[in-house]
Amino acid sequence: MSPGEQNPAVERKKVSILGGSGYVGGEVLRLLLFHPRVEVAQVTSASQVGHYVHASHPNLRSITSLQYCHPAELNPCDILFLCQSHGEAAKKIGEYADKAGSIIDCSADFRLRRPEEYRTWYEWDHPSPSWLDRFVYGLPERHRAELRQSRYASGVGCNATATLLAIAPLADAGLLERVVADVKAGSSEAGARPTEGSHHPERSHCVRSFMPTGHRHQAEVIQELGGGFDLSFSVTSVELVRGVLATAHCFLKEPIAERDLWKLYRQAYGQEPFVRLVKQKTGIFRYPEPKLLAGSNFCDIGFEVDPQSKRVVALAAIDNLMKGAAGSAVQCMNVMNGWDEKDGLTFPGLHPI
Amino acid sequence: MSPGEQNPAVERKKVSILGGSGYVGGEVLRLLLFHPRVEVAQVTSASQVGHYVHASHPNLRSITSLQYCHPAELNPCDILFLCQSHGEAAKKIGEYADKAGSIIDCSADFRLRRPEEYRTWYEWDHPSPSWLDRFVYGLPERHRAELRQSRYASGVGCNATATLLAIAPLADAGLLERVVADVKAGSSEAGARPTEGSHHPERSHCVRSFMPTGHRHQAEVIQELGGGFDLSFSVTSVELVRGVLATAHCFLKEPIAERDLWKLYRQAYGQEPFVRLVKQKTGIFRYPEPKLLAGSNFCDIGFEVDPQSKRVVALAAIDNLMKGAAGSAVQCMNVMNGWDEKDGLTFPGLHPI
Amino acid sequence: MSPGEQNPAVERKKVSILGGSGYVGGEVLRLLLFHPRVEVAQVTSASQVGHYVHASHPNLRSITSLQYCHPAELNPCDILFLCQSHGEAAKKIGEYADKAGSIIDCSADFRLRRPEEYRTWYEWDHPSPSWLDRFVYGLPERHRAELRQSRYASGVGCNATATLLAIAPLADAGLLERVVADVKAGSSEAGARPTEGSHHPERSHCVRSFMPTGHRHQAEVIQELGGGFDLSFSVTSVELVRGVLATAHCFLKEPIAERDLWKLYRQAYGQEPFVRLVKQKTGIFRYPEPKLLAGSNFCDIGFEVDPQSKRVVALAAIDNLMKGAAGSAVQCMNVMNGWDEKDGLTFPGLHPI
Amino acid sequence: MSPGEQNPAVERKKVSILGGSGYVGGEVLRLLLFHPRVEVAQVTSASQVGHYVHASHPNLRSITSLQYCHPAELNPCDILFLCQSHGEAAKKIGEYADKAGSIIDCSADFRLRRPEEYRTWYEWDHPSPSWLDRFVYGLPERHRAELRQSRYASGVGCNATATLLAIAPLADAGLLERVVADVKAGSSEAGARPTEGSHHPERSHCVRSFMPTGHRHQAEVIQELGGGFDLSFSVTSVELVRGVLATAHCFLKEPIAERDLWKLYRQAYGQEPFVRLVKQKTGIFRYPEPKLLAGSNFCDIGFEVDPQSKRVVALAAIDNLMKGAAGSAVQCMNVMNGWDEKDGLTFPGLHPI
Repeated sequence: MSPGEQNPAVERKKVSILGGSGYVGGEVLRLLLFHPRVEVAQVTSASQVGHYVHASHPNLRSITSLQYCHPAELNPCDILFLCQSHGEAAKKIGEYADKAGSIIDCSADFRLRRPEEYRTWYEWDHPSPSWLDRFVYGLPERHRAELRQSRYASGVGCNATATLLAIAPLADAGLLERVVADVKAGSSEAGARPTEGSHHPERSHCVRSFMPTGHRHQAEVIQELGGGFDLSFSVTSVELVRGVLATAHCFLKEPIAERDLWKLYRQAYGQEPFVRLVKQKTGIFRYPEPKLLAGSNFCDIGFEVDPQSKRVVALAAIDNLMKGAAGSAVQCMNVMNGWDEKDGLTFPGLHPI
Repeated sequence: MSPGEQNPAVERKKVSILGGSGYVGGEVLRLLLFHPRVEVAQVTSASQVGHYVHASHPNLRSITSLQYCHPAELNPCDILFLCQSHGEAAKKIGEYADKAGSIIDCSADFRLRRPEEYRTWYEWDHPSPSWLDRFVYGLPERHRAELRQSRYASGVGCNATATLLAIAPLADAGLLERVVADVKAGSSEAGARPTEGSHHPERSHCVRSFMPTGHRHQAEVIQELGGGFDLSFSVTSVELVRGVLATAHCFLKEPIAERDLWKLYRQAYGQEPFVRLVKQKTGIFRYPEPKLLAGSNFCDIGFEVDPQSKRVVALAAIDNLMKGAAGSAVQCMNVMNGWDEKDGLTFPGLHPI
Repeated sequence: MSPGEQNPAVERKKVSILGGSGYVGGEVLRLLLFHPRVEVAQVTSASQVGHYVHASHPNLRSITSLQYCHPAELNPCDILFLCQSHGEAAKKIGEYADKAGSIIDCSADFRLRRPEEYRTWYEWDHPSPSWLDRFVYGLPERHRAELRQSRYASGVGCNATATLLAIAPLADAGLLERVVADVKAGSSEAGARPTEGSHHPERSHCVRSFMPTGHRHQAEVIQELGGGFDLSFSVTSVELVRGVLATAHCFLKEPIAERDLWKLYRQAYGQEPFVRLVKQKTGIFRYPEPKLLAGSNFCDIGFEVDPQSKRVVALAAIDNLMKGAAGSAVQCMNVMNGWDEKDGLTFPGLHPI
Repeated sequence: MSPGEQNPAVERKKVSILGGSGYVGGEVLRLLLFHPRVEVAQVTSASQVGHYVHASHPNLRSITSLQYCHPAELNPCDILFLCQSHGEAAKKIGEYADKAGSIIDCSADFRLRRPEEYRTWYEWDHPSPSWLDRFVYGLPERHRAELRQSRYASGVGCNATATLLAIAPLADAGLLERVVADVKAGSSEAGARPTEGSHHPERSHCVRSFMPTGHRHQAEVIQELGGGFDLSFSVTSVELVRGVLATAHCFLKEPIAERDLWKLYRQAYGQEPFVRLVKQKTGIFRYPEPKLLAGSNFCDIGFEVDPQSKRVVALAAIDNLMKGAAGSAVQCMNVMNGWDEKDGLTFPGLHPI
């Protein structure tokens, strides 16, 4: 279904995007333009006022003739997506809440529950700590029921999402003793602004220890899964634009048989519209791979038992801009509004690519 | 709109795919599974009988539980897509025509009108020459009216499509004297079978003169645009999985002003649903680029006038598996059936990717 | 110094290569052609008899006019490099030993000391178990003294080499309790033969869990560093032709201060000609990166202390075909012959690349 | 031969590099550090004063402990390499000439003979027009004799070098009527400074019409080969860090037989140390490919006759930072000093890579 051809009988909600010129804003916009239940009202960008949105998102040429307006010109709307840099949403959340029936923030500003975590991980004092409790962590696989009751959803960290979904069934079953999450990530994670490290001759074909220790996303994993196990977290940048693979080396309290793992993962994800279990004996794509997921909202999950230890290697692949950001945000919108959770999110990804 | 959730009120045509395990077959299948007017009945593969289609097309996991059947088991259907290797469809076209109301062939077997061209370019004698005239060359931008009347559409060569669409307005206006088409192409063009040249350490980051002379697709360009100008055609393989960029260096009989070129191209393509004119003064994506088109059916077209000569550089970018194969094939189906030409083809492509 | 221009006063040893048409054979050949102390006598290949070596190694065009001869035509020589597939060298080692003063084997056939390990990891019974003790494990950083006394050196596993060198100082100091080695590897590791998995459209931009468990190279790590700690080993294929990054998550018995780590690593590697410690506070290349090492024999090593745990992340990067195969083999030759260890191995790698 | 181990009996010339922190400066430095006839005295960088050169050129870690000094501190030296941005060298050439016995400039400042060409192509007035005649165009293949007599050599444009060497034998024989040079280029051409267009998510896998018309390097081609034919010139950026492939579509006055082309090219390049003719009937690398040339000073040249026209496709591949910049500069130094032309330039490139 393409923009402009949608069923006129369905009443559409008015949605606006604040900070729409970055990579996540562009993906939210793309998804909303093809969403059967909404109409995009405004897209703001302080630096791009008056420019067509397709100047920054060239894939949207001929799809829309929307132009950026200034954030100060934001009108009241039903649903507001915040796609600004970390730290911006928290400053003006009250103001935004006055404008919008519900808010989905894609930044990190409302992901963590305790204000002191922002001091620790983001090195600033949260300016609106009273809002932290009003936001639900925006991962429907873990907070569907709360999202249905809530008007406010936070974003999710892309590396956190992959790690979380990989190990959640083991954590929830109380099996984990120690996890080493070794995450491989593409270049779009770092956003649209060029840096020395993103310069093509330097970034190309790197296998770069971006954050061997100290990555912020581990705070989300711990918050969501509790402190019952020891978590080590490292992120390595690889040659890829979109995509995250989390390789979670899980040390269990007790050995577990493969069929019990299957049972655990099927129980956890068997009904999930965007989680697929990928574990084949043959073929090339035996385990989850981010390259298959570009543009899709799937999180593919697999695992392998190490016959020589109590280790289970749990694997999860996502498109960091989709399930790791814009896709989960739109999925949250669907849940919060009681719509089909797959609305606007059915693109299956490409092969080969 | 996802498979299985489609409007039950619409009567769907039964469509089958012969030779569905290759890259083009996989893309046709993906498009049909999400198409609002059809239902996929059978997908055949002689070598994969009994396997799930998602074994060869892992992006379709959880999307469909179809399994390959043997070509001999093909049932009657409304529409049949032939996605076999070159030379296969021509052998049994009569048999296939008995089974299907209409046929869209993605191979080269019915692209050329004159049997002797097959001798010249494919080095075999066409086994069903009487069928050549019954097929319409499957590029709606050039044969829409005939497609509406026809039950048989041929495939298009991907490099031919990009070159054709880039220069057609100039050719049709009788302006061309000489064209040097320098085509850059990705690795999926060569299909799903591994070769020494497709081995990753060898193919990776190549800028390889695949066919500096003698490429078959030039026969299609000449057939479609006539012999009024001299055509040179070269294909270079570059690091890319999907995508073609045709750089057509056009030498004109007379110099032409840029505004007249705009007029010509707008006239030719202004109403086309899948052709976009891309020519910007600023920004990164000033000209057509295949990287933006992965999964989309757009052909982006641009041009530049060389101030120092009578040369116009005409540029066209496509996804070779979409507009250069499966996408054009589905677009043909839409035209032949009187459906909205964009049905099932609205994915706009991703940015960044 | 180029071939043919070398100092005639130096007496050169006659060196031959058995199985020279693969990737490791090609690198050994390239290194030997520019080595100041040797002369390449013969290069064999059963399948390429009579072809120029530059037919398989196109970078050697104009460098040499050597042609492949049949393995059966091998003449006596001073030094013999065995670059065959795993399992070949072990079958005929006695025969080869009759021909050559000393042998350096690049395969896995003489890396493990205990014959039963071959049953476990390679699933065959070693045909020449009595030879296992005569070979020294070909990593000069760990066996320099023995190599000086030996006529036989084994190859090293590339993933093992990176992991070994990353963690050896910690292992030798008795600090390790548990290591999770998460290795990222390029496509040349798998050799020159095309497979479905190496087909460019499939292999390109993958982040593929090649061996999440069960990789053979862990046997070498355990053999070399002893069983004093628990080792988990996983290999993920990434988009890269040459290169390995080992991310070794090391859990220590006691916390250790960063300055003590520096001391340990400097002590271990301060005098090593091919190990560099890479750990910077600023810049892009703060940690070891394989992309800088293509063609060089360096192993770059770095580390980071996790402030929140007893974890040390030890990192090592190599070119798998150089320090992980051909480079270490030539370095062994230099040591065994009492030559300057850097002879023929001075290429520093390129930037940018 | 590695730094520090060189023959003390050879007297070494003192060489300095002005503007050593960019990509070309880094390559000149790398080559000089391993050159048997010179000693690197100073490397300047206005922005990096006091930093180790390996901070910007991480491949030189452990190879040298040189630190950048300020350009104002430049001491007299035997040979001076200028590796600054275009426009810098021309401003102070007199000053530099007072310091150095001979000068090799890698910028564009002294490539063109006529001052008005700088107005046309670089949009500035040359500040030292009287110096233009004192510089020899730095391509030994075309100006060896003059270089031997000269103290001043200019740089060469990388795209110009590939195009020039591809078509020179045809141009010199007076055969050319029209040439369409379609050049494919890697990202290192644009230098070390990040831009929006070099941002990895945008630049990755592009096939981008960088300059379809108007590229400056064509001025060098015309200057060197005369105006006897019509030249069209286009540059497309492809996914590659190092490398240029020039596909020169040559329209001849008369058809020419393939054996006569062989004769022409062998005559032109048979004695050249850094030009190889690459034209094979079989194999993967049948034509010149830049991927094989990373780090090498070779220019590989091939050709193909179009059986259907008077077109000859002439092909040339280089590493833009080597034969297209630093390599040619060092080759010029060798020629100007009467040294072996291959000194310091023997690295053959890698395969696979």
